[in-house]
Amino acid sequence: MQATVEIQVVPIGNGVSVREDIKQVVSILKGFDFLIETHASGTNVEGEMSEIFKAIEKIHESLHESGTVRLLNYLKLETRTDKTPSLAGKRL
Amino acid sequence: MQATVEIQVVPIGNGVSVREDIKQVVSILKGFDFLIETHASGTNVEGEMSEIFKAIEKIHESLHESGTVRLLNYLKLETRTDKTPSLAGKRL
Amino acid sequence: MQATVEIQVVPIGNGVSVREDIKQVVSILKGFDFLIETHASGTNVEGEMSEIFKAIEKIHESLHESGTVRLLNYLKLETRTDKTPSLAGKRL
Amino acid sequence: MQATVEIQVVPIGNGVSVREDIKQVVSILKGFDFLIETHASGTNVEGEMSEIFKAIEKIHESLHESGTVRLLNYLKLETRTDKTPSLAGKRL
Repeated sequence: MQATVEIQVVPIGNGVSVREDIKQVVSILKGFDFLIETHASGTNVEGEMSEIFKAIEKIHESLHESGTVRLLNYLKLETRTDKTPSLAGKRL
Repeated sequence: MQATVEIQVVPIGNGVSVREDIKQVVSILKGFDFLIETHASGTNVEGEMSEIFKAIEKIHESLHESGTVRLLNYLKLETRTDKTPSLAGKRL
Repeated sequence: MQATVEIQVVPIGNGVSVREDIKQVVSILKGFDFLIETHASGTNVEGEMSEIFKAIEKIHESLHESGTVRLLNYLKLETRTDKTPSLAGKRL
Repeated sequence: MQATVEIQVVPIGNGVSVREDIKQVVSILKGFDFLIETHASGTNVEGEMSEIFKAIEKIHESLHESGTVRLLNYLKLETRTDKTPSLAGKRL
């Protein structure tokens, strides 16, 4: 099933700056067959839902391996049946 | 990997009341080996992350089959390495 | 305007445990004329929207005064015109 | 207090397309002294917190006046004391 999702990862306990963790997240997402758009409050992703879940699992594994003790992940997942869900279709 | 997640499903285009859709979501979640707590703004779930993703995929398939055209799903996913993530550990 | 809101405060850079900060948030909310329900992923609040915003502003001021450098706040705000918005009306 | 916020308004019961409502939201935000960036999952805003709350209250009033019966609003609010919060500072 095709889906769109906004991913915003929040590492807790790593200090005030989380930029390096976010870069790691985007790098992992780029390893998948997704359309990706980063913005100030997260990363918008378009792709197959099962692949999106694989990517999210990899993000949690990878950031924990890099030392993040606690990882919150705010997701806005969307699917629709009237047309193929896309980031382009969600822009004004 | 063990995880906790808050799931809030928002069906768009089904009318103002979404109670029946939410009941369907909770019924699907109860078919999995999860700890579940419903509240006014979503359902908190504790379980294995891969099972959580299976449940979410089933929720989208099932609600679309029941006629929901557009389905938003707001997720707060959390993992941690210092202890097993649990709903009990997140309460005051 | 009457509203319901879920508030989940995430202090960044305070260490892995945020329990004391959450207790401070709930204590501030209790100083207002709200109906309050805490759960594992946030606090559900029912009250007048302008009072809710006063409380949120006080939460940010108060946690910053207590030493939180960076404060994320995830809010699910809801209003409706067909009936008075309430936490009771949002439960299954 | 300066703040950043992501605003994603979800009108319930208006049909599958919510584009006109989102345009109304952005039009209201443009009437304030904010920096605004729209994207596929919401609108990122930088401005004074009290003004942000005024804008949100106006959004709810305005969309209800235009016929929206039920309005969900997903907000990611952020403040920080080590530097002025900005959208620019949150980009990769």
